[in-house]
Amino acid sequence: MIYFDNAATTPIDPAVLIKLKEIESEFYANPSSIHSAGQKSRFIIEKSRDIIAESIGCFSKEIIFSSGGTESNNLAIIGTALANRDKGNHIITTGVEHISVINTIKYLSSIGFNVSYIDVDKNGKIDLDTFQKLMSKETILVSVMMVNNEIGNIFPIQEIGEILKNTEVIFHTDAIQSYGKIDFTVNDLNIDLLSMSAHKIYGPKGVGALFIRSGTKINNLFFGGSQERTLRAGTENLTGIAGFGKAIEQTVVTKNERERIKILRDTFEEKLLSLIPEIIVHCRHSPRIFNLSNIYFPDISIDSLILNLDLEGIACSSGSACSSGSINPSHVLSAMHLPKEHTENSIRFSFGRFNTNDEVDRAVKIISEIHNRLKKE
Amino acid sequence: MIYFDNAATTPIDPAVLIKLKEIESEFYANPSSIHSAGQKSRFIIEKSRDIIAESIGCFSKEIIFSSGGTESNNLAIIGTALANRDKGNHIITTGVEHISVINTIKYLSSIGFNVSYIDVDKNGKIDLDTFQKLMSKETILVSVMMVNNEIGNIFPIQEIGEILKNTEVIFHTDAIQSYGKIDFTVNDLNIDLLSMSAHKIYGPKGVGALFIRSGTKINNLFFGGSQERTLRAGTENLTGIAGFGKAIEQTVVTKNERERIKILRDTFEEKLLSLIPEIIVHCRHSPRIFNLSNIYFPDISIDSLILNLDLEGIACSSGSACSSGSINPSHVLSAMHLPKEHTENSIRFSFGRFNTNDEVDRAVKIISEIHNRLKKE
Repeated sequence: MIYFDNAATTPIDPAVLIKLKEIESEFYANPSSIHSAGQKSRFIIEKSRDIIAESIGCFSKEIIFSSGGTESNNLAIIGTALANRDKGNHIITTGVEHISVINTIKYLSSIGFNVSYIDVDKNGKIDLDTFQKLMSKETILVSVMMVNNEIGNIFPIQEIGEILKNTEVIFHTDAIQSYGKIDFTVNDLNIDLLSMSAHKIYGPKGVGALFIRSGTKINNLFFGGSQERTLRAGTENLTGIAGFGKAIEQTVVTKNERERIKILRDTFEEKLLSLIPEIIVHCRHSPRIFNLSNIYFPDISIDSLILNLDLEGIACSSGSACSSGSINPSHVLSAMHLPKEHTENSIRFSFGRFNTNDEVDRAVKIISEIHNRLKKE
Repeated sequence: MIYFDNAATTPIDPAVLIKLKEIESEFYANPSSIHSAGQKSRFIIEKSRDIIAESIGCFSKEIIFSSGGTESNNLAIIGTALANRDKGNHIITTGVEHISVINTIKYLSSIGFNVSYIDVDKNGKIDLDTFQKLMSKETILVSVMMVNNEIGNIFPIQEIGEILKNTEVIFHTDAIQSYGKIDFTVNDLNIDLLSMSAHKIYGPKGVGALFIRSGTKINNLFFGGSQERTLRAGTENLTGIAGFGKAIEQTVVTKNERERIKILRDTFEEKLLSLIPEIIVHCRHSPRIFNLSNIYFPDISIDSLILNLDLEGIACSSGSACSSGSINPSHVLSAMHLPKEHTENSIRFSFGRFNTNDEVDRAVKIISEIHNRLKKE
């Protein structure tokens, strides 16, 4: 299989796999238990917390573990909106967020919050002047993703953080597609809440984290034990959390892979463009993360292309996996004012640690052959 | 180490461990991805769902996977209370529920729900007549646990189900300490919602499930993708779910261990009572699950006893792990009207698949020695 769907999820890194096996085989006590076995489990969790905190330049106590990116986004957005409702009723976001942000904010809208959407143009660009005009005394929360999960374009988080710096507005960023791939600190970017996930960076599924800046008022979504400073009740996913920490340690070891993956992606696009000149690579000349390519294929059935690629052993997707169940056109491309043909006829190819030059060459050849065949049909 | 804290969490069964390693190494695609790799992951999840559904006699579509018992309890209680508020405003529960039920219902009470508590006596007995008197036209939800997590006493779920059978009241039971240990079907017991967890039955941490009877109106806690019939957004914990299914398969293989563990527990109590006659085993003559023993030790410091046991390599706890952080007396024993000395001076010993006769003999000897030493101090 040629796996070009790394934005949906990644294979587990071998070093993480060793860590998972070690924890599963040797440690099991409940981290909340006061006996020494429990304390050993507690130590494993706190070590992971330290690794993650260090990776974004925050204090360990500002990291809360969750069951994944969706829960982190929900906790960040619902938790702060409800806890700060006395200060205002207005939320600003974009129309291109991940569905776990979009639908969470839709829920808040349904219970009376006012929501403004910052416009994103077809190059993935946000107009910061317009953004500033949307701000009001009622604004309590701004949620803008760091990197779009379908297109890969990078949003101006630093500039937004700068605008919000001397206000009381809480700034959340969904960093699920960028964390472990782009280096930043939450202080440099003036971020108050940052969502992370392990399974996008060669770690296990079922574990995520949320950075919550000290002093940020936030409600919990769950009620129960006092785990995670009472913000996230429930016995901790010991193995998952240990694997998450290891996955982050590996992103340091593998830092030089970023350039390699970028070259893979760029080569893929160049070769494909030379063989099928009519395709359009979305946001090709905008700031983009190194591992993602979203391409519009005119005049063919995209479903047939994906199906035929799958038969040839190439895994890619027509949008985010979380939205895959639905046959709706991409809400991201729609929000970027792209024509209907683009929103319905684009494919996301996402590259990763275990992809090779040879895979790119083979994939380009297969895609172009299938494309030519479909075009004749 | 002699691990007598199996009610807090269990070691992973070797067969489950093999399953976890297999999934982690060989499968990783996002179960929501439509390519064949994604469909293989989907198949693994649906197989686990089938195993769990079969184990409680429900349809597969009535099982929702969650991140654990706490989330299952929260989803069940908050989800149905909010979705059915138009029908009434009254919830009935007990004061001895797990903290993830207690605190969730306290939250509902804080937003205007009326809550009645069924009285539980010192033998762990519920008065069903009083329960029936608490019922009103406003009652929408009854939540009573199947087995208490601190004492191990079994509640009359079948009788409560019978009472609720021809009403519209939703019946939730927290089965986290009984699922995989007691055989039942949700239809025999007339249950509408049933919470389950993997890590109490030799499965992985970070995964649970909720049975939701078809037709039960329920809101989701998370917003995002359409996973789990939109009731639980977020990329599924593929490995955890596979391990949960395997853990349940193992409870069938190991069904004869129940009698063995009961004998271990009973022997432990008998031998300890013969050496320290003043101790009291809570609910000893009430219906009790086979693996739990909660014992009152008069006249000594329980903290010193637990600490000294830990130094000798015996892991046990003074209550549930989820409540361990706090030094408060047990809310369970308090609710059962036991005197303050009992609520502050009791220890839970919980036995499991990997405990042996020899461990029981050694533990009894060590406990009695430490007890005698502490009594002289």
